[in-house]
Amino acid sequence: MNRIGTARYKIILAYDGSNYSGLQRQPSGDSVQDFVETALRRIGWQGRSIMAAGRTDSGVHADGQVISFDLAWKHDTDTLVRAMNAFLPMDIAVQSAEIVNEEFHPRFDALARAYRYQIYCQTVRHPVKERFAWRIWPLPDLAAMNTAAQDLIGEHDFTAFGKALKPGGPTVRFVHSAVWQLTADGMQFDIKANAFLYHMVRRIVYVLVHAGLGTLTAEIVKQGLETCSTGIVRLAPAQGLTLLSVDYKE
Amino acid sequence: MNRIGTARYKIILAYDGSNYSGLQRQPSGDSVQDFVETALRRIGWQGRSIMAAGRTDSGVHADGQVISFDLAWKHDTDTLVRAMNAFLPMDIAVQSAEIVNEEFHPRFDALARAYRYQIYCQTVRHPVKERFAWRIWPLPDLAAMNTAAQDLIGEHDFTAFGKALKPGGPTVRFVHSAVWQLTADGMQFDIKANAFLYHMVRRIVYVLVHAGLGTLTAEIVKQGLETCSTGIVRLAPAQGLTLLSVDYKE
Repeated sequence: MNRIGTARYKIILAYDGSNYSGLQRQPSGDSVQDFVETALRRIGWQGRSIMAAGRTDSGVHADGQVISFDLAWKHDTDTLVRAMNAFLPMDIAVQSAEIVNEEFHPRFDALARAYRYQIYCQTVRHPVKERFAWRIWPLPDLAAMNTAAQDLIGEHDFTAFGKALKPGGPTVRFVHSAVWQLTADGMQFDIKANAFLYHMVRRIVYVLVHAGLGTLTAEIVKQGLETCSTGIVRLAPAQGLTLLSVDYKE
Repeated sequence: MNRIGTARYKIILAYDGSNYSGLQRQPSGDSVQDFVETALRRIGWQGRSIMAAGRTDSGVHADGQVISFDLAWKHDTDTLVRAMNAFLPMDIAVQSAEIVNEEFHPRFDALARAYRYQIYCQTVRHPVKERFAWRIWPLPDLAAMNTAAQDLIGEHDFTAFGKALKPGGPTVRFVHSAVWQLTADGMQFDIKANAFLYHMVRRIVYVLVHAGLGTLTAEIVKQGLETCSTGIVRLAPAQGLTLLSVDYKE
């Protein structure tokens, strides 16, 4: 708790991104942030903007987005979760809430982010699976994708796979892990890094899938990191991507 | 193929039922059948009504609904799948098509139907999981639910768990299997029977979940089948239920 009964809250947020223009506030008012702030105002929040760990793109989902704000709240955190969820649309929901240090910032204090990308392998579209996956046919070669993915591990300049959040901003990132696995009806890619450039996961997935399909060489990642360009700027579709979790100290 | 180049087609249909008033045609025009018939008319179908294996309720999903219709179609069945999917909304999709005997009827010829009901066990709601599951807390007792579910197996008068499709219609059904399993974030119930009464799966799930929570006795199924009443008419929510598949001869 700090000044005037106000505390800083850290919130784990999940959303089905299908109907939103991404996390970040938009003039159109249809971002996740817009709806979260509207819900917060209903319970007395008077801030100007929440803080968030990452700006998911339009259509991208989250299981563990982290947001933070200052709020004067007289009840416990479970009650805060229920109160926010009562005012949020059904496709956005707070998963947990805790009081944190008043200096906490979900973006600047994050040590790592984990994303998952899901692939559905079929010739025909599927109304349920494709809400959360990219449909591909035929099944790409898992070994080739994992060989290429291994080249991402470690500290590199990822200019070939994304843009800095601000012009001239840093483009060096540290990738902790990047691995593809087969699933019941396709495959999924789990990647964890200290931070990601704009569009980085979706550009990486696009390139790795094409390495797996044989339409790009498995050397593409290594070459891209060395030369700061792959020549490929296309993205895997947004709906396959989910922000799984964000790690913090302690 | 039969008269005037027309053939009878059997179609496997999948849909996310969230936005539809069930399978069966409605005056409001927002049923799955309405959208399927609109798509079919775009490719030259002139019939009055498609036939379907089962009438899923409003909000219920399908992975393997079976529909049938007569159509004059000059191309192969893969092309029919693509043509229908081009005219169907994104949350409805044909999975496969085949030409069948001109006497085929998806409802009357069905030997068995398999449904799955998903439970998400958590204290707070989740925007993705709850689109296809009923949220329950705490975790019900799996063994108690399976003990009660076993009493469903075999031929019984299921009046206690549903209504005949027509007043005075048959209420005896044969349940082949009924089993609960734990999943990563809850549990799921798979039930297969020759046919189901109106609301039967959702009424069974409601009773079994409450047997698992200890709020109803595990004897409730046996008692209900013997006396043709459980005293419980409440339903598990529609969004947890999916029609998985329908079996036919050959």
